[in-house]
Formats: sequence, structure tokens, C-alpha cells
Amino acid sequence: MLIVMSRQATPEQTEAVVTAIENRGYVARPIPGGERVTIGILHNKGPVDASPFLGMPGVSDAIPVTKPYKLVSRECKPEDTIVQVGDIAIGNGNLVIMAGPCAIESELQALTIARHVKASGAHIFRGGAFKPRTSPYSFQGLGKEGLEILAKVRETTGMPVVTEVMDEDTFDLVESYTDIIQIGTRNMQNFSLLKRAGRASKPVLLKRGMAATIEEWLMAAEYILEGGNSQVILCERGVRTFADHSRNTLDLSSIPVVRKQSHLPIIVDPSHAAGRRDQVIPLSRAAVAAEAHGLMVEVHHEPEKAMSDGAQSLYPDQFTLLCKQVNAIFDIFHSKSL
Amino acid sequence: MLIVMSRQATPEQTEAVVTAIENRGYVARPIPGGERVTIGILHNKGPVDASPFLGMPGVSDAIPVTKPYKLVSRECKPEDTIVQVGDIAIGNGNLVIMAGPCAIESELQALTIARHVKASGAHIFRGGAFKPRTSPYSFQGLGKEGLEILAKVRETTGMPVVTEVMDEDTFDLVESYTDIIQIGTRNMQNFSLLKRAGRASKPVLLKRGMAATIEEWLMAAEYILEGGNSQVILCERGVRTFADHSRNTLDLSSIPVVRKQSHLPIIVDPSHAAGRRDQVIPLSRAAVAAEAHGLMVEVHHEPEKAMSDGAQSLYPDQFTLLCKQVNAIFDIFHSKSL
Amino acid sequence: MLIVMSRQATPEQTEAVVTAIENRGYVARPIPGGERVTIGILHNKGPVDASPFLGMPGVSDAIPVTKPYKLVSRECKPEDTIVQVGDIAIGNGNLVIMAGPCAIESELQALTIARHVKASGAHIFRGGAFKPRTSPYSFQGLGKEGLEILAKVRETTGMPVVTEVMDEDTFDLVESYTDIIQIGTRNMQNFSLLKRAGRASKPVLLKRGMAATIEEWLMAAEYILEGGNSQVILCERGVRTFADHSRNTLDLSSIPVVRKQSHLPIIVDPSHAAGRRDQVIPLSRAAVAAEAHGLMVEVHHEPEKAMSDGAQSLYPDQFTLLCKQVNAIFDIFHSKSL
Amino acid sequence: MLIVMSRQATPEQTEAVVTAIENRGYVARPIPGGERVTIGILHNKGPVDASPFLGMPGVSDAIPVTKPYKLVSRECKPEDTIVQVGDIAIGNGNLVIMAGPCAIESELQALTIARHVKASGAHIFRGGAFKPRTSPYSFQGLGKEGLEILAKVRETTGMPVVTEVMDEDTFDLVESYTDIIQIGTRNMQNFSLLKRAGRASKPVLLKRGMAATIEEWLMAAEYILEGGNSQVILCERGVRTFADHSRNTLDLSSIPVVRKQSHLPIIVDPSHAAGRRDQVIPLSRAAVAAEAHGLMVEVHHEPEKAMSDGAQSLYPDQFTLLCKQVNAIFDIFHSKSL
Repeated sequence: MLIVMSRQATPEQTEAVVTAIENRGYVARPIPGGERVTIGILHNKGPVDASPFLGMPGVSDAIPVTKPYKLVSRECKPEDTIVQVGDIAIGNGNLVIMAGPCAIESELQALTIARHVKASGAHIFRGGAFKPRTSPYSFQGLGKEGLEILAKVRETTGMPVVTEVMDEDTFDLVESYTDIIQIGTRNMQNFSLLKRAGRASKPVLLKRGMAATIEEWLMAAEYILEGGNSQVILCERGVRTFADHSRNTLDLSSIPVVRKQSHLPIIVDPSHAAGRRDQVIPLSRAAVAAEAHGLMVEVHHEPEKAMSDGAQSLYPDQFTLLCKQVNAIFDIFHSKSL
Repeated sequence: MLIVMSRQATPEQTEAVVTAIENRGYVARPIPGGERVTIGILHNKGPVDASPFLGMPGVSDAIPVTKPYKLVSRECKPEDTIVQVGDIAIGNGNLVIMAGPCAIESELQALTIARHVKASGAHIFRGGAFKPRTSPYSFQGLGKEGLEILAKVRETTGMPVVTEVMDEDTFDLVESYTDIIQIGTRNMQNFSLLKRAGRASKPVLLKRGMAATIEEWLMAAEYILEGGNSQVILCERGVRTFADHSRNTLDLSSIPVVRKQSHLPIIVDPSHAAGRRDQVIPLSRAAVAAEAHGLMVEVHHEPEKAMSDGAQSLYPDQFTLLCKQVNAIFDIFHSKSL
Repeated sequence: MLIVMSRQATPEQTEAVVTAIENRGYVARPIPGGERVTIGILHNKGPVDASPFLGMPGVSDAIPVTKPYKLVSRECKPEDTIVQVGDIAIGNGNLVIMAGPCAIESELQALTIARHVKASGAHIFRGGAFKPRTSPYSFQGLGKEGLEILAKVRETTGMPVVTEVMDEDTFDLVESYTDIIQIGTRNMQNFSLLKRAGRASKPVLLKRGMAATIEEWLMAAEYILEGGNSQVILCERGVRTFADHSRNTLDLSSIPVVRKQSHLPIIVDPSHAAGRRDQVIPLSRAAVAAEAHGLMVEVHHEPEKAMSDGAQSLYPDQFTLLCKQVNAIFDIFHSKSL
Repeated sequence: MLIVMSRQATPEQTEAVVTAIENRGYVARPIPGGERVTIGILHNKGPVDASPFLGMPGVSDAIPVTKPYKLVSRECKPEDTIVQVGDIAIGNGNLVIMAGPCAIESELQALTIARHVKASGAHIFRGGAFKPRTSPYSFQGLGKEGLEILAKVRETTGMPVVTEVMDEDTFDLVESYTDIIQIGTRNMQNFSLLKRAGRASKPVLLKRGMAATIEEWLMAAEYILEGGNSQVILCERGVRTFADHSRNTLDLSSIPVVRKQSHLPIIVDPSHAAGRRDQVIPLSRAAVAAEAHGLMVEVHHEPEKAMSDGAQSLYPDQFTLLCKQVNAIFDIFHSKSL
């Protein structure tokens, strides 16, 4: 942390800041410049809270120098984390594709879609049993029945499954059925849920919050790692901006940044970013070209009858095309020739 | 809902949309225009999901006409909701001021601040016992001990108290101690928590999510009303934007919009919007001038020693000035002469 | 400027950065910390460009310490700038109200509105002659005829006038007719126009860009001051965010920040921020309560017939009420008792 | 346009709206629904301005149905526009790469970089002679000397050149030297400049404004087409959001949307979106995978000595790698096999 004094700050004000720093057990090092004094805070383990200093007389700014995350950082663990789910390794130089309907509606629906996506090249089946919905009047998911259908899909197709958990009350239940536990956008900073996920025995797929900085997102993952669960997959799904031609704005620069800052794998959900079917394939290709470790895509065989998010679900044929294209792209910049 | 067909849409495509609408039990009314056909969806009770239609061939857009909320809307209940907390009526032509520290740190701290803010004109004491923190390494609040201190403050000063609940596990506990249950920004779309709040016996203070539209915020309140609890206070606390001179951008136009669309009272939290002490008083005055029903302000007698958010906490003297100014402003446009 | 080296940076990398700094004529001072080295750049006159250092091996971040603006800063000129326009002093402890239609449509329209707003308490008449319109098919303003009507309004009512200039070609013309030259939101970073405004003999009203940080806004003003014109009035008019209930999100915290950082006066345009009539009065009150030096408000006697922005124009009676309310608020916190 | 009446609107209020519509020469068609009346506006040529109706008593909302752009729309011209620049066809199933330094600094610098990028596969050379800079104290470009250097580059390498024009005063000059005239982000809604560009004899590269919706961007292009110049290339370069890990957030979903709505070619500038070198290659690959018609990339042989934007400039070797990768990606989904 660096405390920047204003140009008019008096020596007494600078001294008061030094004292305040030392009262908190840190070492203060004033650095006189041409126009103003800045004070470095040294010997801190981990990040320093700027708040106590920011409001002091003569203080102009407080600038953090150290990132607040630790366990998730590549500085802490340089090698890539590989999340193993059955035979599937996520983060290991393979492209992992998760696909399925937004919500599990029936065994028939789930199995029909699962067979389609498996045949096209999906590795993991996705489907919501507990659905977070903006409206209390919308379909809220089949709940436990949905989980049982997911188990049936796994049994029948051999694909691992991923599904969302919404609260601590149903966490044990979801954990017992699923292979990957998804924490949704709206719960990215539900810290009680993150703490529970830190004690889970299954990998966690952590979606980026709608207005989360990468730092906040990594800090949310830090909660899970700090709790003891190091199997975390990050999922970029777009952020909220003024743009109105897509549901969210997919932020693909998060991929190189996360890959640089953290050892955790990162995948992309183009379906929720786009909110409209005709953007899903281009964004999927773009995500893989930006070097995502995987994709999570919504597919429905009868989207016009879907009980949620039908407009963004691909038809099975579109998904087949998508798989071919993204695999071809993935091969390019993983081939030795480039 | 209005389905807009593209200019090139064929009669068959239009017909297919009509059929899809009718298959869902609605009435479809095609409206031929000069350049294109639009199709009105009639006889729907409540809002219609656009998704199934948006992706159909020939469909250009789907435009919702009806707002999705119902119980929270002024169309449903024209008269203002007044939330009664002991002697204090929120939403009733009085300006209600909630004040206190970000976090309860000790009985001495809480009582010292409580006496200050009461003397200056605060009606309700605020203080966090369970703290949602971006970092797992930050102070997480005193928990149950904090609740007991809040009870002591109420007993000693006579002020009702408001504190945040973070999860269902601690909901009963928080509910048993507090007078108003706060649901924080990061939990605004924690639907499980909202459902539990719908069964609460105490009023709920629902903060706006960092990236929530007013419609989403009102839908979150709808969850609580739909669950049976009609005592909801909305709290504007700024939204996340590109602006970097304040922690969030306070969106005061939400006040006239909420007041027009809904019967629920709305207060403003200038402290979390600003994130810096020197913006809190101007924003408080602005909020009251925009006709908020109340304020929630952070005050600390030793902000440079505060365990969280010290930089945005007012000194007691500043809070005294704030109270004088906002009460004077409130009187102006509630006086008969204007 | 502070260059932060990564934890893994080698001594050679640090040395290379030091050399690069010194090659540019600055003094480099390495500051070894517990975990990493930071390098201060000293003896720079004005801000340093981070770009050359940011991409060097081993560099983790570059943190500016000094604000890039100079002439507009309060550090440079501590006392408030007062812009004098005829008898009207802006920034001098008075509340200055500018009002009028979005666009000048005819002499009758302009005079009718001008008389209304003057009677209600407006000090300066606003009206567009050259109109920046999103669509080439929208009414583009009366041009020179509009300027002549503005001159007529000034002559008849005694009010100074403010109108927008859109380009250098018409700058001389606009300058010769108006009392204050407005530079609009979309031209805030039209640097050629700013340079021309720096040579103008009339005060300039500089609106904040739709996505401009305060720093960028002040830098735009710096262009004008650097060109020789110190008579600049800043105008907050809302920024673009995801919020969809108002045309823009009015950012009132810019007022205390600008007042602290700069000596220039700042006014608020609630009409363009809101985009809807029913938000204009609450936002006007809020702006004055946040201590704006003035307001700029759209008023039309027949808004439903207005040729542009009718939906946000107040009726004359509403404007009368607004003036009463904002003056009463202004008096409160400028009175001695508070 | 569809006018939505509120549920409580009286028949008189509805009638007044119908009259207001008809007074403007349109046909009004009231559509009684279950809960409220909506009124369609028919027989309008082009879009209708909502403003006059929005503020009328009983009106709840005004919903545009028709897009406001015309000449740029695919509805108006279904086939792709191909912009021809010498031998290079943009929008014609080829991937066009523009590359070069941010600013022209000297003939040696320009020629050195030009030879590098040509050898790596660039088709068009970019370089700024007139530079829009946030600060008046930053390097503003070499001006006419820079243009002469660009001419020399073209002569020597055979590559066409693209450079930015900042105002009408220098438009003739820039037009006489360059092959493509660039209009920058900050001037996207400089309507005087757009009108001049409409009379230009050279193709125009129109960058998206920092906070522009796609509709506003297409409307800016509409100004140019309406003025008589149909040779417009759109350039996505990121939008401003809360995200702070990149200079802007690249919005790749704009590519499928623009390609669907408009016949104009669209390219991507990953350098200004990222603002940091290490994101440029992933974002370039992503842009091509999302089916951009081309790229515009900053390259510098000595970025640490660059006079502007060095931090985002690729080293020549990186650019060579980029070209190989994006061409391979482009080939994939333009090959017949997929």
C-alpha cells in the first residue's frame, strides 16, 4: 500500500499518517518526491485496508500494490490446476465441452438432449434442477426430481453432470447427485455458500458475477480454496453493460488475465452472455480462440417449447456444427506448427 | 407481449408464430403494418416469456408490454405502504434516519456511537454482526455476540436496530434479535434468502444489487411479498459503472421511478455509494432532495480505527451537521408553501 | 509514477526498467519491499506515460501518483473561478439557472418560453440553433436563423444566452451571437474544437462526455485553459450505464469531487440525464442539494409539439415550482445557521 | 411505434393521444388488451419520435418497433458491401489485416515497421499523423509531415494506408494523402465530421464510440451513407465498462449483430480494446473466430520507445505469430468441410 499525501499536506499530517500506520503494526517509509510525499507501508502480510488512512487529513489517495488474493494466484502456485471429473481433465490441454438444457424438464427431454450432445462431442452434461429465476412466478426447476434425472443421464450416457446449487439447505442433496457443483452468477458473492463450497468434496464451477471485477471473482474463488477445496473451475459468462444487443457483454479478455494471474482453469458460457441463439456459435468460437479451457452451452431439441431460456438454446444440429468448429480452432493453436 | 416480424417474414412464418402463441394458451392478434407484421399476445395473465418466440424464423423482436411485477406495483396497490418499526413509521411523510457503524466491534464502540447518533437525530441504529466481505481474510463480524450488543443498544437507547442477514442458517437468529432484517446488495438475487424473508415476521430492508435494474430489484421484492411479508423497505446504494471517483454511482433517479411504480418506501445509503467520507454529506442532502423516505448512514467515532469501511464513516460532528441539513431540506418540499 | 515489479522479477529486469526510466530523463528510485521491488519515478514535470514501462519483462503494474491535469486543478489555483456573464456571476455563491427549449423552433416559441422562464427566476436562456442528432433524418436546428432568434431573446428579455457549437466552421458565427458557448457531450473529446474554444473570447460550458471519467473531463477543460481561455463552466449531465429507467445515470458525486479537485464552477443538466419529465424536478433539487453552482433545464410551453426532446421538457408551471424549490434548498446550506 | 397506456388511463386520455398522433400525420390504431390499451402508430415513413407522446397523461411507455437506420440496413440492401482499396477487398470473404504503429514518429520508424508487418502478412498500413490525445501535453502527432511519411510508405511497400482525420479543417489534406480515412472513437458522433465524410471520395473506417450502442453506431454510418459515400468499414474497438483489467471491454457479439443488421463490413481493433500487449493476440484470434472481416493491430519495433500507446503495441515477432494464427482460424470456418 502506498499513501499519497496532497501537495499541501503539512509535516504534522504526514507524521500522523506514519503513526497510524505503525499503530497497526506495519512499517511506514515516507518517500519525499518533487511535489509531494508518498508513504510506503511495508512488512504487511497480505493486503492492507486503505480505509483508515483514506480519510485522514492531508491524504490524497491510497494505492494498493499487492493483489489481495493468495491461494488462487499463480504467484502462490505456478503450475496449472487440473480438475479431474471421472475421465475428464479440465485445464489439461484439452477442450472440455459441457452442454445440455437450461432446465431439466423431464427424463425424456434430458435423455434426448444428452444423447444428442454426447454424439456431437460434449463431455459433460449440464442441466438445472434448482433454477434461480428473476420472477417468483417463473418455473423454478424440478428440484430433487431433476437431480434424479441427472443421475439417470449419467448412468445411461456415461457423461458426468454439472448442476447449480442455490443455497446451503440443498447443498448436501445437490452434492450427493452431481459431479460438478455450479455456483451461479447471482451467488458469486454469497459468502456463506462459498464457505460451504469450500468444504465440498466435489469440484465447483464458479460463474463470474454480473458486475464482478476479476479481482472480486478470484477473491470469491479464494473463499473456496481457503475452505479446503482446491478444485475450482472459473466460468466467464458476460458482464452487465449499457449494450442492449446481447443479454450481457462477454468479456473475453478475462481469459488471458485469469490465465496469467491464476492457476485455475477457466471456461466460457456463451449462451447466457448472448441470450440469443444467433450469437452463441460466433462467441463459442471466439472463446476457444481466446484460449478458454472449455465451454458450457445450452442445447435444446425443442427450444420453442423450453421452460426457460429457450431463445438462447441451440438446436442439436447447430451444436454439432459448433463442436466441429471449436475443436478445429482449438487444434490450430495447440498444434506444434504455430 | 408484442412479437415483431422482420420485413421479409413470410406468411407461413407469421402463421407459425401465431400457432406457437396459441399452443401456449394465449390469443394471438396479428397487426399488419406498412412494412411488417406485428403480433400482439392477448389474454395473458401476467407477463409472457419472450424466449420461445425470439428464436423462431422470421421473428425480429419481442417487446414486453406489461411489467412482470405485480404485488409490489402501484397498479396493484395504489396507496403507499408504511412500514412500522416500534414508534417509527417509514414511508409516512417523515424522514427516517438510520445510522451507526459498518460493523459492531464492541459494546463500548456500539454504545458510544449509538448515543452520538441518537443525540443528533437518528431514529434507528445500524450495525453489522455478520459481514459480507470480499476477502476471506477480512474481519467477518462478531456474529451472535454482535447481535447481543445490538440488543443492548436497543435496550439502552430505545432505538430500534437494523442488521444484515447473510444466509438461511442464521436467519432465525438474526430475526430474533433485530427489528429490521437487512438483505445486502450481493444477496439481492439470492432467491432462497428472499423466500425465507417472505416468511419473516420482521420488516425487510432490501438493498439494490450492484448491477440490478429497477425491474429486477422490484422482482426481488416481489419474492418477499409473494411469500407473505409485505413489510419491505427498498434501499438504493449505488450501482457499478465505469466511474472511478466513487465506489459506486448513486442512482437517484431510482427514487422517482420506484415511487411511481411501487407503493414500497425507498431509502438511500450514501455511505456505500460514495465509499469516501467527503461525498457522504452532499449525497445525503441530494437523496433527501430527491424525496427518499430515509437515509442509512455510517458513523464512527474513531473511523481511522474502524475494522471495516472506516474511510466512508462520518465523524459524529459531521453526522450532526448532516441531520440538520437533511431535515431542513425535507421540511422545504413538505411544507405547504411550495 | 510507481512501477511495480512482479515477485519473480530478476535483478536484471529491475535494472532494465531503471535504465529505461533514466533514458527518458527521469530519476528512478528502487524501493525494495518484503515481497517485491517497486520503482519510483522522480523529477518528472507533469505526469509520466506508463506505456513504455508497462510492457517490459518483469513489470507487473504502473501506478500514476500525480494527476495529469494542471491548470484546472485547485492545487494550481486554490481560489474558485468565477465566470462573469453580464450581470450574472457563476461560481460565486449564487445559484444560476439556465432554462429554455432544447431547440429554437421559431421566434414566437423562443420568446414565449423565455418570458416564462425569466418570470420564474431563470438567469440565462438556453436554446439550440445547431443540434447534434443521432439520426441524419431528425431536425438539425435552424442554424443561423436560430442564432438571430437568440439575439432577439437577449435584446427583448435582457437575459444572456447559451447555445451549442458543433464544429470549427461555425464557431466564429456562434461565438459572435452567444454569451456562453456550449460544447456538447458528444464533442467533449473533439480536441480540435476544444483548441478552438481555448482561443474564444466567450465563456465555455463544457458538458461531461457520456462515458468520461472526471479525469478525462478535467483534461478536456485543460485543453481550453491551456489555449488561453480560463472561463470554463463544467456541466454534469449523466453518464451511460446499464440502467434503463432514465436516459443516463446522473452522477452527483462528481460535484464534490470536481469542487475539491478543481476551481472551475460546475452546474447540472437534469433534463438530458433523465430523458423523462417526471424525473427532472427531483434531480434538480438533488443537484442543488449536492452543491451544484447552477442548473440547465429544458422548458417548453407545448412539449408535445416540440421538435426535439419534448418528453424531457418541463411545462412552464413545473419550472416555476422547480425554481422555488431549488432556491429554498440552496438557501438552507448557504445560510449561516447550518 | 407503439404507445402503451397505463392501466388507469381514461378514455379521454387515450383519445388525446390518438389526436396527437393524427396531428402529426400518422394513423393511430388503438388495440384494447385485457388490462390496458396500446396504440399502434401506422403509415410512418421511418421511425417516429417518442418524445411528444411519452409525457402525455395516461401514457405509460412508448416502444419503437422499427429501427431508425435505413441505408446501412440489410433490409435496405441485402447483399454485402465490399470496400475496395487498391487490390484489397474488404468484406469479400478475405481476412484483411491492417497494422502499424499508433503514431508515425519518423520515416525510419514507419518504414521499418511497415516492412515488418508486410512481410508477416499485413495488407494495409496504419499510422496516426493527427493524434487525439486525452492530454494537451501529450505528443499530438507529426501532422502533415506524418502524412508525407505515410505516402512514402505506400510508395515504398505498395501497401495502402489508413490514418485518422480529426476535424474538417484538415479533412482535405488527410483525404488527399490516405487510402482509408479513419474516424476515431471520440468523434463517432461528431456529426459535422460525419457529414464531411459523406462527401469524401475515399472509404471511411468508422470506429465505435466508447459508449455507443450498435444502433447509434449504425446511425453514425447512416450519416456518411446519406451524404453519398457508401464505402464505410465499421470497427469494433471495445466499450467502456466497470472492468479494469483491460482498457476497454471488447464486445465481440457486435460482429454477428452488425453482420445481421447491416451490409457493411466490420473489423476489430484489439489493441485499443486491450490496452495491454498480452491480451492482443488472444483477442485477435477471438475476433477472427467471431467472423470479423479484418483486424487493425498496433505494432512497433521498439514499443518501449514509442511516443504513444507503446504498452499495447506488439513486437514484430508477436505480430508474425498473430498473422499465422488468425489466418489458420479464418481458413477453418471458411473451408467447405465445416
